Amino acid sequence: MKKIRAAVVGYGNIGRYSVEALEEAPDFEIAGIVRRDPSDRTGVPEGVKVVGDISELEDVDVAILATPTRKVEEYAVKCLEKGINTVDSFDIHTKIGELRANLNKVAKEHGAVSIISAGWDPGSDSVVRAMLEAVAPKGITYTNFGPGMSMGHTVAVKAIEGVKAALSMTIPVGTGIHRRMVYIELLPGYEFSKVASAIKADPYFASDETHVMQVESVDALKDMGHGVNLVRKGVSGKTQNQLFEFDMKINNPALTGQVLVCVARAAMRQQPGCYTMIEIPVIDLLPGDRDAWIHLV
Amino acid sequence: MKKIRAAVVGYGNIGRYSVEALEEAPDFEIAGIVRRDPSDRTGVPEGVKVVGDISELEDVDVAILATPTRKVEEYAVKCLEKGINTVDSFDIHTKIGELRANLNKVAKEHGAVSIISAGWDPGSDSVVRAMLEAVAPKGITYTNFGPGMSMGHTVAVKAIEGVKAALSMTIPVGTGIHRRMVYIELLPGYEFSKVASAIKADPYFASDETHVMQVESVDALKDMGHGVNLVRKGVSGKTQNQLFEFDMKINNPALTGQVLVCVARAAMRQQPGCYTMIEIPVIDLLPGDRDAWIHLV
Repeated sequence: MKKIRAAVVGYGNIGRYSVEALEEAPDFEIAGIVRRDPSDRTGVPEGVKVVGDISELEDVDVAILATPTRKVEEYAVKCLEKGINTVDSFDIHTKIGELRANLNKVAKEHGAVSIISAGWDPGSDSVVRAMLEAVAPKGITYTNFGPGMSMGHTVAVKAIEGVKAALSMTIPVGTGIHRRMVYIELLPGYEFSKVASAIKADPYFASDETHVMQVESVDALKDMGHGVNLVRKGVSGKTQNQLFEFDMKINNPALTGQVLVCVARAAMRQQPGCYTMIEIPVIDLLPGDRDAWIHLV
Repeated sequence: MKKIRAAVVGYGNIGRYSVEALEEAPDFEIAGIVRRDPSDRTGVPEGVKVVGDISELEDVDVAILATPTRKVEEYAVKCLEKGINTVDSFDIHTKIGELRANLNKVAKEHGAVSIISAGWDPGSDSVVRAMLEAVAPKGITYTNFGPGMSMGHTVAVKAIEGVKAALSMTIPVGTGIHRRMVYIELLPGYEFSKVASAIKADPYFASDETHVMQVESVDALKDMGHGVNLVRKGVSGKTQNQLFEFDMKINNPALTGQVLVCVARAAMRQQPGCYTMIEIPVIDLLPGDRDAWIHLV
């Protein structure tokens, strides 16, 4: 069977783990990696092509956009216009609808498929949340994240004057409420208490319980593990108190990379247009014979 | 907006809870109930028509088959031939593929849709299991059931000589292994130890840890609660030890009835043919505006 040729655009953490997932997938081959500096082969597996622009790669079926979230739309449009399918893990929840509408138009015009916001949240968590909304239509769902590093919050801390290095950990305290544990190294000449106050006053932290700690090495604290505890208590028909819970303890970029490879596969099986994961049958995420999966699960 | 007209075929536990879920659904109306004795209105809500044959009901869009599992195919064929969509919770895992192939042919011939094996297992659990196979392709999934009543095992106990009434509870002991707790009332003149030995020797129980207890009233022990603990430990890409867990504590027929109503809705949104739940986008299970769900989850 002809393998799906995937390009990986961007080669940070998510890009690296996406390449690993492609190497392990039975139905994919790696068309190449697109990165700003194509002469940089740091961490690139032997034999994998590195280029500066996707047009330098041959016969790309699908591009895995492992770029910063804010660059997703620009790269997706560029690929879709060439008829290349795209997948991404765009994670600004409030802008998913807008991105989907924009890419849907471009994808249809060029007979291509785009699957957006396909990481673990939004992404696989969204599939679980949607299904629980269906099977218990009345009720409340709480998504509790962590313990794990929050990229967004860490970037926000780094932007505060006096901070040399930072790590913001998300700690779940239940019912969707989170504590922020912030670890910083200070630049010389700054007073810890003032910097800590500035962090706590930042919009990213102002409404959460936040603790700031000074450490010698932020790097020594970093791990890429993360977690989710998703809880729904609801009503099926007229029956109250139906209880559901979904838990994960995972390597964050490894799971995102694997989800991206799964939706890259699914992209080959959809009609032209743009989709989120809840719009795609889960069987399309799986390799191999469909009948075998129907028997198995 | 025109409401979906659903018939409920069979009026045992699943049928009753399906009717409750239809009453609560914003986009459905109840076309009627089909049962063997149409003069029996026990438990039927006022104003709901009861008939002996589905052809006596008008404008049925979809039939919810709340019949015994072994009757599903016969009733489904009968409905599909009239162009009526069908949904069921057929639960013999090893025969799902065969049922799907047979109904797929009939459904396509008559421009109708059938969604099969749509309860919680097989059903919503299958969606979770398939997604976890995708996001961690190597590894083992264990599905632990209970504590809750097993219909199949209870029927097997009742068939043993000397048993007046029985209840077989499924108790999870981890890694997909289950203990069977069997509660029986004896018929006069039978010896408990002999009946207990016969139960333990039955193929349904021979390979499981089984405890048999004599009680005064089996009926006094019955509740319709059930549970699932679904665990996967696997590999995403090349990253080991990704941990996932899905738990439910639910009223069994209430959840099945609600899932059936969700797939009855989804049946209106598929191309002719026969599907299992893993072949259907989860968004199709949900009522109302699709764009709103995409924004929400």
